[in-house]
Amino acid sequence: MSNESIENVRLNDAGTAVVILDQTLLPNETKFLELREAAELRDAIVMLRVRGAPAIGIFAAYALYVLARQIVPVSYESFVSEVNKLSAFLDSSRPTAVNLGKQLRRMTRLVESLPLSPVPEILDSMLREATLIQQEDVEMCRAISEYGLTLISKGSGILTHCNAGPLATSRYGTALGPILLAQERGMTPRVFCCETRPLLQGARLTSYELSRAGVDCTLICDNMSGIVMNEGKIDAVFVGCDRVARNGDVANKIGTSVHAVLARYRGIPFYVFCPSSTIDPDCASGSDIEIELRRPEEIKELYFERPSAPDNVKCYNPAFDVTDNSLITAIVTEKGICRAPYKESLAQFLR
Amino acid sequence: MSNESIENVRLNDAGTAVVILDQTLLPNETKFLELREAAELRDAIVMLRVRGAPAIGIFAAYALYVLARQIVPVSYESFVSEVNKLSAFLDSSRPTAVNLGKQLRRMTRLVESLPLSPVPEILDSMLREATLIQQEDVEMCRAISEYGLTLISKGSGILTHCNAGPLATSRYGTALGPILLAQERGMTPRVFCCETRPLLQGARLTSYELSRAGVDCTLICDNMSGIVMNEGKIDAVFVGCDRVARNGDVANKIGTSVHAVLARYRGIPFYVFCPSSTIDPDCASGSDIEIELRRPEEIKELYFERPSAPDNVKCYNPAFDVTDNSLITAIVTEKGICRAPYKESLAQFLR
Repeated sequence: MSNESIENVRLNDAGTAVVILDQTLLPNETKFLELREAAELRDAIVMLRVRGAPAIGIFAAYALYVLARQIVPVSYESFVSEVNKLSAFLDSSRPTAVNLGKQLRRMTRLVESLPLSPVPEILDSMLREATLIQQEDVEMCRAISEYGLTLISKGSGILTHCNAGPLATSRYGTALGPILLAQERGMTPRVFCCETRPLLQGARLTSYELSRAGVDCTLICDNMSGIVMNEGKIDAVFVGCDRVARNGDVANKIGTSVHAVLARYRGIPFYVFCPSSTIDPDCASGSDIEIELRRPEEIKELYFERPSAPDNVKCYNPAFDVTDNSLITAIVTEKGICRAPYKESLAQFLR
Repeated sequence: MSNESIENVRLNDAGTAVVILDQTLLPNETKFLELREAAELRDAIVMLRVRGAPAIGIFAAYALYVLARQIVPVSYESFVSEVNKLSAFLDSSRPTAVNLGKQLRRMTRLVESLPLSPVPEILDSMLREATLIQQEDVEMCRAISEYGLTLISKGSGILTHCNAGPLATSRYGTALGPILLAQERGMTPRVFCCETRPLLQGARLTSYELSRAGVDCTLICDNMSGIVMNEGKIDAVFVGCDRVARNGDVANKIGTSVHAVLARYRGIPFYVFCPSSTIDPDCASGSDIEIELRRPEEIKELYFERPSAPDNVKCYNPAFDVTDNSLITAIVTEKGICRAPYKESLAQFLR
């Protein structure tokens, strides 16, 4: 599969920098960046050069390792304290996706668990842990894809929003994983990609990944999901997600909840795909999820040749919305498929 | 009111050209075009330099007059035949809005009703008729606005899609009319404008018109209508429309039906505003309405600095969608407010 060759997040050979494919420049430019400083590593998350909840988690783990190597340790205590500070700095980049904080905590807990080790050994452990996080992600995506494949029939029409493909993870992806698998197995799914305003991840990334893989893919504006459902073109909606509450409410890219309501109105199943690590035990329902608000320029100026609206017009730019669990047919994880009542079905998958 | 000063469609002083404000260049440029040739007049509709169902009707009437003046008449019959040909040529520009064909037929029927008049007199009648169409539109918008005002409370949060303001009509507008009136009367409505992909009429035109008029206006992407409704910011949805079927199904800008389904899901009233001339007696239901499909470049390239998707990706670009009558709280015309059952309530307003 041609999309397996995109290595979107990795360490450089010396282990001194995180190398990423700059997702803001796709599909027009394939440019890799080598990032080594704390500010530029955090900035890569803020600016969405690296994006997708699982990919951000992997990136953060490597980033913390790269930064930890730069610490000149006076003592174990000062090293731990520096690592924790760097972790908090990276974690402050974006609030909504669960994976960022989770993988950073996994790394800092590891460091805290090795008080008797010399720093070089701790660094080796950190490298092994970050690599493991990425390997787990590959296996996790594969398992999600296999479960998801059971929800696809030959020639299924699938609507997807934003990007939950290989670029957002490490391979296959979550929501796009079953589609790519289906394509490999000759089931020729027909996919409608919503462009995903304001940052156009659907147009720039999903349609790019799907066409590279030879999938029959049609780009639409987000507001066209209603008409394609009305016209009978859609058999299921597949989306990724950034955080799942214990009751099954799901935060994902802004607009996701719109497609969910439309799908309910038309009787079309609505599936969410994510690693079980996305289920947040500290979050009882969607109202506990902090929704990131981003700058107005993303709506009015970014990507456009000329501003799309007068200077003085206010914009409201939430990056995510919450889809109520009652609108979700199933949540597909690497451990299996959860259905309502979600409180019970999700609980078994919480480690 | 400052927006009354935008004269978006008029004849030049000599009556030899139609002068329009080029709506494709707003809000960055205020440029007027003088159009006199058949091809450039038709093109102005195709390219959306003039847009909005009522404005297109007014424009077409003036355009037909300007073109009729250029005919060198050999006989009454040849003049009528030429006028009919020109009318058909203009009518072929866009299929969905009812007003275009309707106002053109009104003009050609007038010409056909004057077999005994010399051509200069027929031309005078055509000019009077086109002017009357525009005057009627002003009065019609005013009446719609007054009826619509009864649906607004002080500080109402209103979601609107695309542009149904003064630029789409001749003054006040249809869906924006009640909002502008409410603002004049100190009711300070708070309006959320959906940007309206792919052609951004909401960002470029509605937010421009509303801010000029001092209305509290917030621009959002189309896929954010769900979250603003969920957050309790919206008390009503106001949209214009391009064609109403006898059963109350309504064709309007792509995405309208999405907001209608969301409004129904949240129990928010959904109002459609249009002149009664928009009710099409030849159209039993929405499935009889032809939906214009436009070119892929509007989604992938137009307005963007660089293409938003790979070259080879297909696009589906319907310009309108149909909102089912069951989702519509009321249809507001200059003759009064229609509610379900629409077959009966609309029938009384069909001339």
